[in-house]
Amino acid sequence: MEDAILSQFDSEYIFYQLFEPETSTYTYLLGDKETKEAIILDPVLETVDRDLKLVQELGLKLSFVIDTHVHADHITAAAEIRHRTGAKTAISSAAMLECVNIHLQDNQELQFGLQKIKAISTPGHTNSCMSFLFHDMLFTGDSLMIRSAGRTDFQQGSSALLYESVHNKLFCFPDWIKVYPGHDYRGQTVSTIGLEKKFNERLGSGKSKEEFCEIMANLKLALPKKIHMAVPANLMCGKPPV
Amino acid sequence: MEDAILSQFDSEYIFYQLFEPETSTYTYLLGDKETKEAIILDPVLETVDRDLKLVQELGLKLSFVIDTHVHADHITAAAEIRHRTGAKTAISSAAMLECVNIHLQDNQELQFGLQKIKAISTPGHTNSCMSFLFHDMLFTGDSLMIRSAGRTDFQQGSSALLYESVHNKLFCFPDWIKVYPGHDYRGQTVSTIGLEKKFNERLGSGKSKEEFCEIMANLKLALPKKIHMAVPANLMCGKPPV
Repeated sequence: MEDAILSQFDSEYIFYQLFEPETSTYTYLLGDKETKEAIILDPVLETVDRDLKLVQELGLKLSFVIDTHVHADHITAAAEIRHRTGAKTAISSAAMLECVNIHLQDNQELQFGLQKIKAISTPGHTNSCMSFLFHDMLFTGDSLMIRSAGRTDFQQGSSALLYESVHNKLFCFPDWIKVYPGHDYRGQTVSTIGLEKKFNERLGSGKSKEEFCEIMANLKLALPKKIHMAVPANLMCGKPPV
Repeated sequence: MEDAILSQFDSEYIFYQLFEPETSTYTYLLGDKETKEAIILDPVLETVDRDLKLVQELGLKLSFVIDTHVHADHITAAAEIRHRTGAKTAISSAAMLECVNIHLQDNQELQFGLQKIKAISTPGHTNSCMSFLFHDMLFTGDSLMIRSAGRTDFQQGSSALLYESVHNKLFCFPDWIKVYPGHDYRGQTVSTIGLEKKFNERLGSGKSKEEFCEIMANLKLALPKKIHMAVPANLMCGKPPV
């Protein structure tokens, strides 16, 4: 029956997008159809039961829990998933987290079964943001978002650096590469590099680095509601500080 | 540039899933890559600007607006999209709506460009519900939902009929057919026939028709907030009654 379940996938891998509505966060589950090894990207503490139920229903075994960065708006489920499944936690080495098992370097690949996912350093939203390439999909975290970009006004954020990360790294991928962001606040689920180069209101459509920096400097956003709880917790892989 | 934008799709068709958070409704945009003709399924009045912007960015032309049924929780954007784009509106003939251009029959196909979508009558949640088959995807509206089923306590709903529709029609598709529902309240975006047959808590996992009817009779749900506004409006294709 497990094979019938997984036979749904016309490719050799499994892909699920999941949404956490309170903070509009996307979590991604990626698996290897052959060996059933899997990874989860940016899981949220509040939806960990839902996500682990799906992992179990699909007959998967989690090898890694990856965070694209130290989130400020929600608490990661990384430590909780490690505790419950034995999966190793991974985040950019630039985050300098003692709690994490794998300190990812730029261009490092993680293998699960016959599949590989590649980490790409894209700082700017925070100083330790990474994007991840898997087949024709880019998981861009809060760096490149659909027609938008992650804010750059805390956690060592830098508009100039974010512009360079997106233009010199992400926009160098082919137009047909799919973009799966860490959040979307308008109910959009996916984009492509081609669409973002042409229509992204902050980073694309011919905007210069100076124009981007000016846009970002004038956003005047309120701080994320949970930042004072989320950042300290996420610096401990999602365990609330004692 | 338009061709670069559409070259993203490794198949001959375009597929976008969009989410309306207030009523947790999914809208689907399907297009023919060759001719740029497209259809939109279950659009919501509140998100019509977002959806038509995407249609325009992709260089598509809408041929049809389809509703899976007369919705009780939100107002359809069908009339508004017809007004703004010239697309024809379509819904089951069983809904007996005077406002609609195409009264769909069971197994009727609608052609847009080189693509076809097939209507499949699946009454039960309402008496005029249809599901739609497009390539390996089933758009199940409020009939079969992820690990769940549409309620059956108004609009001529019938638990027995819904069970028959799902078991005698939808569950006859291969396990690998993807299921895209009309709503999801838990942040899930997609399932498969195989997963639902095995794990659907109401309709699958060996539940008999009698067990399903008992589950549905005991849900004791409050009426949808907007039902008294949405149903009269949707009986006019989404124009609020004067």
